[in-house]
Amino acid sequence: MLRKEITMTGTSTSPALAAALAYHQAWNSKDLDQAMTYIADDISCDAPGARIAGAEQYRGFLGQFMTQLTGVETIAAFGDDTTAVLFYYPHTAQVSDAPAAECFTVTDGKITRSVLVFDRPSFAPPQS
Amino acid sequence: MLRKEITMTGTSTSPALAAALAYHQAWNSKDLDQAMTYIADDISCDAPGARIAGAEQYRGFLGQFMTQLTGVETIAAFGDDTTAVLFYYPHTAQVSDAPAAECFTVTDGKITRSVLVFDRPSFAPPQS
Repeated sequence: MLRKEITMTGTSTSPALAAALAYHQAWNSKDLDQAMTYIADDISCDAPGARIAGAEQYRGFLGQFMTQLTGVETIAAFGDDTTAVLFYYPHTAQVSDAPAAECFTVTDGKITRSVLVFDRPSFAPPQS
Repeated sequence: MLRKEITMTGTSTSPALAAALAYHQAWNSKDLDQAMTYIADDISCDAPGARIAGAEQYRGFLGQFMTQLTGVETIAAFGDDTTAVLFYYPHTAQVSDAPAAECFTVTDGKITRSVLVFDRPSFAPPQS
């Protein structure tokens, strides 16, 4: 399957994308503490089936997500002054071909809002 | 809920984003014929739980999706020479707060590849 290499358009001129990519790289490396340095205390996050409010709740959510992670293939990354968008394939033991996307709002280098989208059934454990 | 106005960054300089937004606007207006003018004959599309190959199959898929649509709220749009990314909330009779995202590959003004992501359960009919 053809997949485009990660597009770093505007990293040097987009503060939102710089923060989003630094956050992304940290959790891709399973460095939860480092990832959380880019998360605002009052973050709000819309995730599939869940509304997450505040950094503590977000840390629990991200930590849980990371336990299933074996790798990440990032296919697109864009941003402007305040917004960044990432598209990637999270790899788990069972799944490597289901995409996820995030739209971040960034203020003063911190992510204050995130809209996370993935298809829950695509990541569900295989039916026994 | 705070939602950012659509970000049109780079429409004038990104041919991929120009094609993606023209396509997006056409199907948002339920103009399936117009939308299909931006779709390459050999499009491949990864959608949740489905791999779509070729314009005819894609037309069927998009037409079906459009029947449930009452509106679209677009929150982010970015692109470069060959790739564009859109983030939006499709509105249906039941749902208006579940996001979708698309990552398009564009060649000569036509969409040749699309990765579409949304959470199927968020759009499922209410449990009776």
